[in-house]
Formats: sequence, C-alpha cells, structure tokens
Amino acid sequence: MAEPQRGDAGGGSGTRRRGAAAKRAMAAAAAAATSPPCGACKFLRRKCISGCIFAPHFGSDQGAARFAAVHKVFGASNVSKLLLHIPVNRRHEAVVTVSYEAQARLSDPVYGCVSTILALQQQ
Amino acid sequence: MAEPQRGDAGGGSGTRRRGAAAKRAMAAAAAAATSPPCGACKFLRRKCISGCIFAPHFGSDQGAARFAAVHKVFGASNVSKLLLHIPVNRRHEAVVTVSYEAQARLSDPVYGCVSTILALQQQ
Repeated sequence: MAEPQRGDAGGGSGTRRRGAAAKRAMAAAAAAATSPPCGACKFLRRKCISGCIFAPHFGSDQGAARFAAVHKVFGASNVSKLLLHIPVNRRHEAVVTVSYEAQARLSDPVYGCVSTILALQQQ
Repeated sequence: MAEPQRGDAGGGSGTRRRGAAAKRAMAAAAAAATSPPCGACKFLRRKCISGCIFAPHFGSDQGAARFAAVHKVFGASNVSKLLLHIPVNRRHEAVVTVSYEAQARLSDPVYGCVSTILALQQQ
C-alpha cells in the first residue's frame, strides 16, 4: 500500500494525476455553469433557488450591500411578503422605494425619509 | 385528619371561608392595580414588562391598531432595535415617523410614503 513515488516508471501515478486534474476541471466548469446567488441570498448566506423573489432586483455584485439596508430596516421576510402581494411588473418600483426608505432610515434613524417630506413641505 | 363538615359547631370552617373570600378580594384588587398592557404588547399578546420600550408610545387603547401597521411593515424586533439606538427624548418622533411610513406602505404597497416625496417634488 506504499504511495507511488515521483519518477516511477509505472503508468499508475500519471493516470491518477490526470484523473484528479479532470475532476478539478469538471468541478470548475460546474461552478461556472451554476449562476451565482443573488445579492439577497448572498447576504443571507442561503441557496438562491430558481424563482427567488429577490433575484430580479438584487444583483449578485452590488445587490448584497443594498439588500443589507433593506434587511436591517424592514427584514427579509416582511419585504418578501410585500413583494408577493404586488404584481410582478410593479415589484421593481417597490424594491426601489423600499431601498430608498431603508437607506434614509439608516442615515437618519429618527426621521428617515420623512425628513425629506418635511423639508419639501417647508419650501 | 377528617375534613370539617358544614354545620359543624366549631369555628374552623367559617374562618377558612372568610380567608378564601379575603384572598379573592386581594387578588381582584391586585388585578385592578396592575396597569393594562401597552398597545404593542396587547397586539403581540405578551406580558408588558416594566420598562417596555413600546409602552410610552403605544397606548393601551388605540396603540394596538397603530402598532399592527408598524409590526406588519417593519417588524417588532426591528423597531425595538431602532428605538434602542435612539436617545430616549427623540424616540417619540421616531415612532411617529415609523408609524407614518408603515401606514403609507400599507395604503400604497408599491410607493409607500415615497409617493408623497414624488408628488411634492413635482409641485
């Protein structure tokens, strides 16, 4: 049961190395074929299933940071329920406004985006 | 160790009845003295502890309905965390603006209070 040593004349070691390289290549190809998780699922560290309600609105790259604010202020479950009750063609607008409100609340915990309303009303 | 029977000449039974009545009266007085739960705890069906973070802002009568909207949109836990990070003397303003945002989001699930901002900007 001795490990084959480098430079062995036998073909066993070479075959084994080629097999390992092929396996690595196949794994890399499979990883490339699988689409990356959406920003929300990346943030939540969960599997991004086909038909994920967040995927169309939170891209894999910058979506995670945007989702972090939404998650902190509203919670993933509340936003998911909200989107489920909105027609598909209007969900993107809802995500934009929810993200805006979340960002505003993180910037100004007391007034949130209501500060903008008050400022506009005073103009 | 026999139980005293009704109509016994001895004073034991009467004393016990008076004791039970006194206990009931004391329990009723204690219940009346306990303040009712705040609107948030009433909605959440939980014991309203002394120092409840919601109690100063959600009254027992109309607070429950107002808290229902806040709970549906933001979640009790998120609002509790938000309030904990705001100085006590500014929490009431935060509750007012959070309630406003929640009501607006329930009325207009797509735009929420952002519709007011857009309308004011177009004026």
